[in-house]
Amino acid sequence: MELSVKEIAEKIQGSISGDAALKISGVSDLKGATGLQVSFILSEKHLNEALASKAPAIVSDSLSEIKDKTVIKVKSANAAYAGLLRIFYPEKEIKGAISPKAAVSPLARFSASAFIDDCVVVKEGAEIGEGAYIGAGSFIGENVKIYKGVRIYPNVTLYRDTVIGEDTIIHSGCVIGADGFRFIEDSGKIVKVLQIGNVVIGSLVEIGANCTIDRAAFGSTVIGNYVKMDNMVHIGHNVTVGDGTMIVAQTGVSGSVNIGKYCIIGGQVGIVDHVDIADGAKIGAQSGITKDVAPGAMMSGTPARPLMKLRRNEAYVGKLEDLFKRVKQIEAEIKKSSKEK
Amino acid sequence: MELSVKEIAEKIQGSISGDAALKISGVSDLKGATGLQVSFILSEKHLNEALASKAPAIVSDSLSEIKDKTVIKVKSANAAYAGLLRIFYPEKEIKGAISPKAAVSPLARFSASAFIDDCVVVKEGAEIGEGAYIGAGSFIGENVKIYKGVRIYPNVTLYRDTVIGEDTIIHSGCVIGADGFRFIEDSGKIVKVLQIGNVVIGSLVEIGANCTIDRAAFGSTVIGNYVKMDNMVHIGHNVTVGDGTMIVAQTGVSGSVNIGKYCIIGGQVGIVDHVDIADGAKIGAQSGITKDVAPGAMMSGTPARPLMKLRRNEAYVGKLEDLFKRVKQIEAEIKKSSKEK
Amino acid sequence: MELSVKEIAEKIQGSISGDAALKISGVSDLKGATGLQVSFILSEKHLNEALASKAPAIVSDSLSEIKDKTVIKVKSANAAYAGLLRIFYPEKEIKGAISPKAAVSPLARFSASAFIDDCVVVKEGAEIGEGAYIGAGSFIGENVKIYKGVRIYPNVTLYRDTVIGEDTIIHSGCVIGADGFRFIEDSGKIVKVLQIGNVVIGSLVEIGANCTIDRAAFGSTVIGNYVKMDNMVHIGHNVTVGDGTMIVAQTGVSGSVNIGKYCIIGGQVGIVDHVDIADGAKIGAQSGITKDVAPGAMMSGTPARPLMKLRRNEAYVGKLEDLFKRVKQIEAEIKKSSKEK
Repeated sequence: MELSVKEIAEKIQGSISGDAALKISGVSDLKGATGLQVSFILSEKHLNEALASKAPAIVSDSLSEIKDKTVIKVKSANAAYAGLLRIFYPEKEIKGAISPKAAVSPLARFSASAFIDDCVVVKEGAEIGEGAYIGAGSFIGENVKIYKGVRIYPNVTLYRDTVIGEDTIIHSGCVIGADGFRFIEDSGKIVKVLQIGNVVIGSLVEIGANCTIDRAAFGSTVIGNYVKMDNMVHIGHNVTVGDGTMIVAQTGVSGSVNIGKYCIIGGQVGIVDHVDIADGAKIGAQSGITKDVAPGAMMSGTPARPLMKLRRNEAYVGKLEDLFKRVKQIEAEIKKSSKEK
Repeated sequence: MELSVKEIAEKIQGSISGDAALKISGVSDLKGATGLQVSFILSEKHLNEALASKAPAIVSDSLSEIKDKTVIKVKSANAAYAGLLRIFYPEKEIKGAISPKAAVSPLARFSASAFIDDCVVVKEGAEIGEGAYIGAGSFIGENVKIYKGVRIYPNVTLYRDTVIGEDTIIHSGCVIGADGFRFIEDSGKIVKVLQIGNVVIGSLVEIGANCTIDRAAFGSTVIGNYVKMDNMVHIGHNVTVGDGTMIVAQTGVSGSVNIGKYCIIGGQVGIVDHVDIADGAKIGAQSGITKDVAPGAMMSGTPARPLMKLRRNEAYVGKLEDLFKRVKQIEAEIKKSSKEK
Repeated sequence: MELSVKEIAEKIQGSISGDAALKISGVSDLKGATGLQVSFILSEKHLNEALASKAPAIVSDSLSEIKDKTVIKVKSANAAYAGLLRIFYPEKEIKGAISPKAAVSPLARFSASAFIDDCVVVKEGAEIGEGAYIGAGSFIGENVKIYKGVRIYPNVTLYRDTVIGEDTIIHSGCVIGADGFRFIEDSGKIVKVLQIGNVVIGSLVEIGANCTIDRAAFGSTVIGNYVKMDNMVHIGHNVTVGDGTMIVAQTGVSGSVNIGKYCIIGGQVGIVDHVDIADGAKIGAQSGITKDVAPGAMMSGTPARPLMKLRRNEAYVGKLEDLFKRVKQIEAEIKKSSKEK
């Protein structure tokens, strides 16, 4: 695809300073750009990189002119960046088909516009919506509901009764709906407690590669709309994650935790069972959350403390060597002074 | 399925206070119950929830009567709970069959009552026992032995020579028997050390989704009977895990660790190689274990300390700001008093 | 296979003390050896184990003679150990074939000596090199390049455009090339930023089971030659990992991190985005890296500090109870002495 700077500026509602007729054939970062690509200043401090870049056209929300470059000034360079990528690199259109190398139950239902790739297995009662894409080798269990526009990458496993909302993306290796972790002791034996609930995932969610989300004991483990999870996140049974929350890689959420809306949970965080994390909370990477977290709170560390408190504690620990010396010195002076008396 | 309270009480050896003829069609938690379900008080403090529940019948081991409810008093509500779930939600019977869309070696052996789903691949020398279930897309390597009643969920990978004991459950995405992590330096090159052992898993084990258990360098990595692992647990080569031990999600166990019987290892714990964790030890979530752990010890933190010691240390760290102030104050007084002299 | 001690000694350039005609049929550790196996002393402190071993022949780089044993003295027991394993347990030869139960695009290209197992799916534009092995159920996306001698174990997913260098090993459950984690807020909505780069993995790399390596936003996420990754490692988008670096299990590397050559990164480490870890750095298990790390530095803890500093801090924290008591004592003495005045 090739677009002129003028056409690009129209699409991202920008104003041009420079050569509006310049032809552009792709999008790049500043460093890797060729002479045919548009690039971006995402903040003013990247000006030197922009000057050094081979990109002839630069989109910016901070600068209107850059020496020897055509500049497209926009309100948000971030939004323009996401938008132009979608224009230059459109997803392939999905053509409805069921591979003859898939194994689909005659008791499953498929939209004519859904694509079912090779070696996919679909069990009875499952429903696959319009324009959904089911990647090769994925397993769609009994009574799974996949709404329209969903994209399931290859080698995903959806246990029975899982529900996936519209336009949600599930990356490869995810296991959604495995049994929650609950066992009881009965007369010295460890007995499994059946998990009869399911997992319900909202719309426009993205779940990274190799995540696991366990089915509820009763009812549903619920992932809200617009939730974004990085790779290898673990969600226990009966958890709820509110709309718009982001969870970074390798975080583990124990059973029956409630996470509010628009929270940001860092990577490798652990959250014990049955706590509430209120809307807008921010949890630092590698934290251990053992108690409820207040709305909008910023918590970090293990056990987690308010971020400022944690930083102060860390600073004090860093000065302990000095403190031990000072106390020793005081003791010496007191001893000396008591002898003098 | 529908059972009367009388029939339920007989099955869980309980005594009835209320309407023995009441018809019940399912099991639920207190909050989600409908007017046709039995629910549970797992401790007396849930009485108010029970009163508010729509469940007409309540199983309890603490209370004999609840206002407006039929109560089934039992010795252990937990055991009754696990038992009734199995009665109301029985697993589907497995019918022996090999899918024509599976790819099975003529040199593998299958019990006639085993079920091999679509896109399963079974290599030569493998043996699949009575009533075993192999989920779609799973890979069963050469000479793998799967005993009777085993349930392998879809998309599991069992490398060659793996042994899975009776009635064990392996959830989707698990990789059992991959090479242990061992490399040596030889004349400046990093050389792989072949791992010629295997993995042996006992009976009545449950392994959560996306776990990895590495084959031994020599001999076997051994997982005992009744071991329960949550999701994304990593077990290194030549580890042994004793009977009845539970390991919570995302914990990593390095090579040649010995974990005793009936231990409880929290989530996101890391254990360095070659340590012994004795029977009955309890390790707190996110701990880092760097040394042997005594029988029944409760350890937590990184590096792990006895739980009480850790809590005290944390409390002292929390009071450091105050301590620094006090020492400063003391220094000022000493200075002042020495001037006075 | 059976070899005489003489033949073994020749292969590993060792000198014999004892019975050169002794027939040996395998390799074992000291403890598990039978009377027909050769075993190893990897350090002198294992002498007692060697004496107790049933192995009639022992390879050592520290001892020339051991009572009642035939000893093969070598320069490096480690190297001899890796080498003899390869001799006694050679990998099966790979015979070129494409399984009729695979689903391969007519627009993909295959070396005649490559083996494509059952239920593998290969998309258009992919290239599979000489002697490559693609395990059952693996997915090879569009335009993936797999060089000669590569071994892909079952149930691996390679997203489009991934490049795997010669003789590299990828274990089961790995997901290579899933989208990096990048979203922007645009008018209150959370919008995905397309990831148009790829993943390039070097030669002689080994990637453990269930790892995830994300594609770059632009350009490539790069894993150097000889890199060895344990299980469940997560690599974010645009990361580079230098030649010969080892990363232990469950470590997470955030986006745009540069890791140098011959680093050793412990297990369960977390590294924040955009930091540089210089050549030869060593990072302790469970560390949290928040800043650049200098060449050859040994860092540990969260936030990471030089190892010696961390150990000292930990020691001081362990003595805090005592310090609080001492300060209290000082305060009491000062109070007493001021009253006396």
